[in-house]
Amino acid sequence: MAYTIEFEPVGRRGPGPEGGTLLDAARALGVDLASVCGGGGTCARCKVRVVAGAVTPVTAREAGLLAAAELAQGYRLACLAAPLGDCRVYVPPESLTALQRTQVEGLEVPARVRPAVSARVVRLAPPTLDDLRADDERLCAALPRGARLPDVEAARHATLVLRELGWQVRVTLRGREVVHVAAVDAPWLGLAVDMGTTKLAGYLVDLATGRTLAARGAMNPQIAYGEDIIARMMAANQGPDAARRMQALLTDAVGQLAAEACAATGARPAEIVDAVVVGNTAMHHLFLRLPVGPLMTAPYVPAVRAPVDVKARDVGLPLAPGANVHLLPNIAGYVGADHVAMLLATGMAEPAGSALAIDIGTNTEMCLAHEGRLTSLSCASGPAFEGAHISCGMRAAPGAIERVRIVDGRVEFKTIGDGPPVGLCGSGLLDAVAHLRYAGLLDRLGRLAGPGVRPAPEGGAAEFVIADEARSGGGRAITVTQHDIQELLLAKGAIRCGIDTLLQEAGITAGGLDRVIIAGAFGTYIDVENALAIGLLPAVAPDRVAQVGNAAGTGARLALVSRARRRQARDLALRVRYLELARAPRFARNLAAALTL
Amino acid sequence: MAYTIEFEPVGRRGPGPEGGTLLDAARALGVDLASVCGGGGTCARCKVRVVAGAVTPVTAREAGLLAAAELAQGYRLACLAAPLGDCRVYVPPESLTALQRTQVEGLEVPARVRPAVSARVVRLAPPTLDDLRADDERLCAALPRGARLPDVEAARHATLVLRELGWQVRVTLRGREVVHVAAVDAPWLGLAVDMGTTKLAGYLVDLATGRTLAARGAMNPQIAYGEDIIARMMAANQGPDAARRMQALLTDAVGQLAAEACAATGARPAEIVDAVVVGNTAMHHLFLRLPVGPLMTAPYVPAVRAPVDVKARDVGLPLAPGANVHLLPNIAGYVGADHVAMLLATGMAEPAGSALAIDIGTNTEMCLAHEGRLTSLSCASGPAFEGAHISCGMRAAPGAIERVRIVDGRVEFKTIGDGPPVGLCGSGLLDAVAHLRYAGLLDRLGRLAGPGVRPAPEGGAAEFVIADEARSGGGRAITVTQHDIQELLLAKGAIRCGIDTLLQEAGITAGGLDRVIIAGAFGTYIDVENALAIGLLPAVAPDRVAQVGNAAGTGARLALVSRARRRQARDLALRVRYLELARAPRFARNLAAALTL
Repeated sequence: MAYTIEFEPVGRRGPGPEGGTLLDAARALGVDLASVCGGGGTCARCKVRVVAGAVTPVTAREAGLLAAAELAQGYRLACLAAPLGDCRVYVPPESLTALQRTQVEGLEVPARVRPAVSARVVRLAPPTLDDLRADDERLCAALPRGARLPDVEAARHATLVLRELGWQVRVTLRGREVVHVAAVDAPWLGLAVDMGTTKLAGYLVDLATGRTLAARGAMNPQIAYGEDIIARMMAANQGPDAARRMQALLTDAVGQLAAEACAATGARPAEIVDAVVVGNTAMHHLFLRLPVGPLMTAPYVPAVRAPVDVKARDVGLPLAPGANVHLLPNIAGYVGADHVAMLLATGMAEPAGSALAIDIGTNTEMCLAHEGRLTSLSCASGPAFEGAHISCGMRAAPGAIERVRIVDGRVEFKTIGDGPPVGLCGSGLLDAVAHLRYAGLLDRLGRLAGPGVRPAPEGGAAEFVIADEARSGGGRAITVTQHDIQELLLAKGAIRCGIDTLLQEAGITAGGLDRVIIAGAFGTYIDVENALAIGLLPAVAPDRVAQVGNAAGTGARLALVSRARRRQARDLALRVRYLELARAPRFARNLAAALTL
Repeated sequence: MAYTIEFEPVGRRGPGPEGGTLLDAARALGVDLASVCGGGGTCARCKVRVVAGAVTPVTAREAGLLAAAELAQGYRLACLAAPLGDCRVYVPPESLTALQRTQVEGLEVPARVRPAVSARVVRLAPPTLDDLRADDERLCAALPRGARLPDVEAARHATLVLRELGWQVRVTLRGREVVHVAAVDAPWLGLAVDMGTTKLAGYLVDLATGRTLAARGAMNPQIAYGEDIIARMMAANQGPDAARRMQALLTDAVGQLAAEACAATGARPAEIVDAVVVGNTAMHHLFLRLPVGPLMTAPYVPAVRAPVDVKARDVGLPLAPGANVHLLPNIAGYVGADHVAMLLATGMAEPAGSALAIDIGTNTEMCLAHEGRLTSLSCASGPAFEGAHISCGMRAAPGAIERVRIVDGRVEFKTIGDGPPVGLCGSGLLDAVAHLRYAGLLDRLGRLAGPGVRPAPEGGAAEFVIADEARSGGGRAITVTQHDIQELLLAKGAIRCGIDTLLQEAGITAGGLDRVIIAGAFGTYIDVENALAIGLLPAVAPDRVAQVGNAAGTGARLALVSRARRRQARDLALRVRYLELARAPRFARNLAAALTL
C-alpha cells in the first residue's frame, strides 16, 4: 500500500514507493534529504521529525543514534522509519543536502584560445541536374582537404540544415571531422563541467573568445544514494539497470546545468559543439557507466585511465548532434581527472620552484612538484570538513557557522547568510579548534578542559558551547564536543600525513616550498592562519599559500578552449607518479605525528 | 471498437487497430499481406476474401479494380475494407509477400582473407599493489604500439571480461582500436548483409578463414508499408518517429537474421565483431535513419555518399559491444552501395575486356566497363518482373509458374515447388512472351492474336490461357493478358534503353561486349535465350552471359573478409561515372525502339 507523504517546509507531497521507508519517499519525491551511509542506518544524517501520521516503531538502532530528547519530539531516521499511513514529515535544515554554497568560482587562467574544434563559414551551390554530388561530398569539397562527415547524426542534421539555411552555414570541425552545421550567426558554445561528489559546476564558454558566459552550480543528485562515494558505487554495482540509473541521475543534472547556463545567455544546449568533463575517478566511471567494482576492491585500479572522447548523445547529453564530450585522463583509482584539471589550472605542469597543490574533500588529493618531478597521492580525510560525523555539523549552507573566534573567553561567530545559526560547517569547526587551542582550552592531544568546557548533557565526554539554546536557530545549543575534535584531528592528520610523506619523499622540508595551493570548496573558505595553527598545513609563510577556488572547473575550461592544454593534461597524467600513501615507508609514524595539535 | 480478425490459412488471429482496415489488422498481426501502393487503394495487391463476418460496403474503387466474379465470391481489397464485427478472412497465396524464394546464393569469389579487424591473444598480469595500472593501460601495453581502447562500451565490457577470464583473452583490434575482448577460443565472426527492397540476405562468416558458416534470407519487413521503395520513403519522411520506426523494422530484421545464422552454428550474435551492410541508396538511408526527403525530389541526391562506419549498437544491432558496421559507399540517389558491392563481386573493377553488369529489379542498375572506364546508370523498370501489375502475377513463391513453353500450340509449364499453379512470376511471364512470339501469336508491337487467344472474360482486351480453371490451384484460369504484355514491354524497354544508352556512350555495339553479367534474384532464374529473344538483352552470344545470383551479398562478404576489397569499393565508387539516363541525348529514341519485340 502506498501512502501520501508530505515533506515540510520544502513542500513536497506525494505517494512513497510501496513498502518503502521515508527516505525512499524523499528520494521518489525529489527531496534532497542527506544520507551519508546510503540508507544503511549508520550515519544518522537523514534525521526527520514525524509531525503527523503513523510510522513503524523506533528501532534499537535509532534509540542508540538519536538523543532521548529528539526521540521524545518525534525525530526518526528516515531510512529506518516506514509510513503506516499518510504522514507529514518535517525536514530540519541540517538534514537537507541542498541550499548549499555551490562552488563555481575559480581562477581565470589566460590561455591562447584555440579549442579542439574549429569553425568555418561555407557557401555551397545547391544540387542541380548538372551537379549531382551528395550532401557529404558537396560540403567536404568546400572544406580543407581531407574533411569528412563520418558521424551519422551530424550527417542527418547537416542534410536538413543545409536546405533550411539555403546552403550557407557555419561548419564546426574537430580535426578533419565535421561535427556540426549551423547558421552562420548562431552562438558557438562549449561546456566545461566539474562533477564533484557533492556539487556540480557547469561553465558555458564562448569558444571564439574563450570567455565564460555563464556559470551554474547544482547539487550532485546522486547524493540521494549516499554522500559517500562508496555508497554510490555500491548502488551502481547492483547491476546494469542500477548503473544506468546512477549515470542518468548525473547526466540529467549536467544537462540541466547546461540548459540553465544557456537560458541565462539566450542560447540553446544544441548550440554547444564541444564539452570537457572532469571528476574524480569514481564520478568519471559513473558518468561513463564503466564498472566500478574494481574501484571498490584492492588494489583499486580504474577501468580507464586514458582521456576519453565520447559523443554527448551517447551519455545522454542533448548538445549539438555531433558534439563530443572529452574527459580528461585519470591517474589512479583515487586520483582522477579532476586532479589533472586542478594541476592544469594551478600551473603545476611547469611550476616555478617547488609547489604543493591540495584539493581538500572527503578524499583529499595532493601533488608535489619538485625539481620537475610531479608526485600525487590521495588520502581518506573523511567527511568531517563537510560537517558529517560532527555532532552539530552541517554543510556550508545558510545558517552554518563558518567563522569562530574566542576573544577574551567570549565566543564570536558568523553564519553563512548571517541568519541564526543552525550548525557548524567545516571552516567553522577548524576555526573553533584553533581558537580553543589559542585559549588554552585544548591540549596537544586534543583534550578539552578549562573554563566554559562542560560535560555533554547526556553524560559522556566534554563539550564547548559555541551558541547556546537562546542564540541558536534550531532551538538546541550548538557545541563542539570532544568527539568532534577527534574527528577533526583524524581528517587533519590524514591530510598532514600525506603532505609530510610527499615532502620526505622529495627530501625537502615545508620551508623549501615556494607555493602551497589550496583548491576546492572547503579550502576556499578556511582561515589559512588557523589551518597553519592546527597543523593542517605545514610551517610555511602564510603569504606563500594561495586559495584558488574551484581549480578543477578552471582546468576543465582550459582544456575546453585550448587543445594545447588538453594535450598538456594528457601528458601530465602520464608524467605524474602516483604514490600509494599506505605503502610509504614512514606512513604510520607520519600519521601518529599528524594526529596531534 | 476493435474486432477480432482471423486470417487464414496463415492462422493469425487477434484484434485489429480500432477504426482500421483489414490491411491495418494484417500489419498489426504480422500477416505478410502484399501492398505495392502502401494502402492507397490503387495496386489491388492486397486482395482478400471475407469468409465470415461483416465489413464495410464495397467501394467504387474496388468495383473498378476487382472482377465481378471476385466481388461475388467476397473478394475485397484489404486496404479499403474495414471490419464491422469479428471477421474471418482468407488470404490467397498471390496476396502474400512471404514464402518467397529468398536469395542468398551467390558467387564465392576468392579473396585473400585479411579483414578490417585483427585478433591477438594476450595474457596479462593481474593488478597488484605493485602494479596499479588501469585496465586500459594494462591491456594496451600488451598490444602493438599505439593500441588504444577509445570506445566506452568496449572498455566497459573489457573490464568485466578480463576478470571473468583470468586476464587471458583474445583481443579484436580494428586498426589500433580495441573493439572487443573475448575468450581465446570463442568464435570470431563477421556478418555481411544485403538489404534488398524486398528481401534481406545475411551471411555469417568465420573471419579467420573467410568461410561462410551460414546464410539466411528473410523478407524485408518494411514491405508492410509498400513494396515500392517510394512508399516507404514517404512513410519514413513523416517525421522523426516514423523514420525511427522504419529503421527499427529493418535493423530488428537484420538482428533476427544474425541471430538465426548464429543459432545454426551454435554461436551468439555477441560474437560478431564486424559487419558489412549494403543496400540501395534508399535502404542505406533508411537503415541509418538519414533524411530521405532529398532522395524523393529532383535532382535526387543522397545525404551521404562516402563509406560509413557506425557502431552496431548505434543502429540497434546487438552484436559485440564495440563492433562496427561498415556500409559501402553510394554512387547516386538511385545507384547505391549494393551496386558497388555487385561491381566488387563481379570483378568489374578490373574487367578483362568490355563488360556489362546488370542487377534487374524494380529499379535496375547497370554498369558498363569499357577501356578502363566505368559508367553506371539506373532505370525505373517497374515491378512487372516481380509479378506486380500483372493480372495473374505473383512473386517467385511456391505455386508460381516460373517456366513456360508453347510446343506445337500446347502450353507446358513448371511451378516453383511443383505444386498446382496459382500465378505467374517474372521469369514465367518472360518465357510466355518469348514463346507467344515464337508461336506467332504476338507481333512486333506486342499485340496478341491467333489460335488460343481469347477475349478477356469481362470484356476488354485479349488474353492467352496458360493454365485453365481445371489445372489452376486457385480455381481461376491463369492467363497472360494484352495488358500484361504491355507491362512487360515497358519493363524490358526501360532496361534495354539503359543498355543501349551505355553502349552508345562508349561507342560500341553489343557484339563488342566480352561479358554480360546478370545479377540479382530475378536475373538468376530467367532463361537467357528467351531474354535475348524478346530483346531484354542485346544481341550477344548466349555463352557470354553469366547469371551470378546475389552478387551484392557476395560483394558485402568480400568487403567483410578483405580490407583491400573494402578500399577497392571506396575507390570504385569514386571512379564510376554516373549517367542520368533521362538526360542522355538519345534517350527518347532508344526507349521507343526498346519497346518493341
